[in-house]
Amino acid sequence: MSGVLHLVGTGPGDPDLLTLKAARIISRADILAYPVGSETSLARAIAAPHIRPGTEEMPIVIPMRRERGPAQAVYDGAAEAIAAELGMGLSVAYLCEGDPLFYGSAMYLLDRLGDRYPVKIVPGVTSLTAAAAAIARPLAARNDVLKVLPAPLPDAMLAAELAPAGSVAIIKLGSHFDRVRDLLVALGLAEGAMVVIHASTGHEKVLPLLAMPAGERPYFAIILVYKGGEGWTGGHG
Amino acid sequence: MSGVLHLVGTGPGDPDLLTLKAARIISRADILAYPVGSETSLARAIAAPHIRPGTEEMPIVIPMRRERGPAQAVYDGAAEAIAAELGMGLSVAYLCEGDPLFYGSAMYLLDRLGDRYPVKIVPGVTSLTAAAAAIARPLAARNDVLKVLPAPLPDAMLAAELAPAGSVAIIKLGSHFDRVRDLLVALGLAEGAMVVIHASTGHEKVLPLLAMPAGERPYFAIILVYKGGEGWTGGHG
Repeated sequence: MSGVLHLVGTGPGDPDLLTLKAARIISRADILAYPVGSETSLARAIAAPHIRPGTEEMPIVIPMRRERGPAQAVYDGAAEAIAAELGMGLSVAYLCEGDPLFYGSAMYLLDRLGDRYPVKIVPGVTSLTAAAAAIARPLAARNDVLKVLPAPLPDAMLAAELAPAGSVAIIKLGSHFDRVRDLLVALGLAEGAMVVIHASTGHEKVLPLLAMPAGERPYFAIILVYKGGEGWTGGHG
Repeated sequence: MSGVLHLVGTGPGDPDLLTLKAARIISRADILAYPVGSETSLARAIAAPHIRPGTEEMPIVIPMRRERGPAQAVYDGAAEAIAAELGMGLSVAYLCEGDPLFYGSAMYLLDRLGDRYPVKIVPGVTSLTAAAAAIARPLAARNDVLKVLPAPLPDAMLAAELAPAGSVAIIKLGSHFDRVRDLLVALGLAEGAMVVIHASTGHEKVLPLLAMPAGERPYFAIILVYKGGEGWTGGHG
């Protein structure tokens, strides 16, 4: 009997936004795996209060590079290490910020292990709805179209998607921040757009896009653009 | 000192997908308010294990009609009833399925009370990521565009949004189910599209769109369409 791999969303950052299910799985897992960026793992920090003392941990150090090769090689190795544990009948919980299937790294393990071992997925609160909560404005309402646009996409593609009415969230900003801001200004969409940084955490910061200091390039930021439509009519937030 | 209105997302249906924060706020609230559709309230059912015996409850019966007037009149009345409690310094938790600001009814209270009373928002797991979890396929990956399209939108608008590559979730199906299926067939997108009904609940059902029995018109359904792009490459799910 092989063990189960749980892909566990730990939510946007506030440890209180962990689900009851995630907390229970974390507290019972034989092995906890999680990606580590530069130094720390946000997902591990969120899970910390629920980790049984003595639980085996498997930090997966992801090289932060533009090319995909190095990171994919790390996931190859991690998948084999996890497979070895599952093969011995041990359960593994792989922790990821937000939701495992919403732009998450969990898909790299699902891709490598999903056909060979039982995999269960625990959805989590995304930074998307946490950002909407931070500005107290509906993310989308009634028959609004809602779009999530990754900032690395080319300007022409972003502009085309931004043209119709609706609600838009732009993610993965980082070094693309200035370019995206310039694009929104050029399209007449910067006014009213909001930036939410580190939504739901102690470092949460909310400000209008046009008030964002030049040169700041926050990675954990989302720009929310609301283009009317038939949704929100309130003046609040 | 007026009380605080908490707009609380209770997640997609599985009571275990409630957040720790939502559970705590529910257990401490002076008054619990929640929308009631035909007979029962899913949000209330999810919250049930955490409700203190004797907690005052305020079910808000929403007329299920196509016109907006009757429902909006009910929210007017509900907002005044909630305002009266807040004015006496009592705390009110308004429960909503999924996330309060993701196509939720909470915006109607935010709109009416947000400028007059302190409002706090507790984001929740949406049916969107719960549906992706049910089919064990990424909702969106890497630089995919992700779109949420409400089914009541006209065919031409849906078709325009479905044209580019990316990942699409179609919500609010109900009586629009057959029309949307026909549209997806006409656009060559029905193959590979999945239907998830009552994601995360005991009634969860997952099936390919083309295997969906004619005449079934589930309201709590989502159609997930994946149009390639540079995201998911796995064969799993």
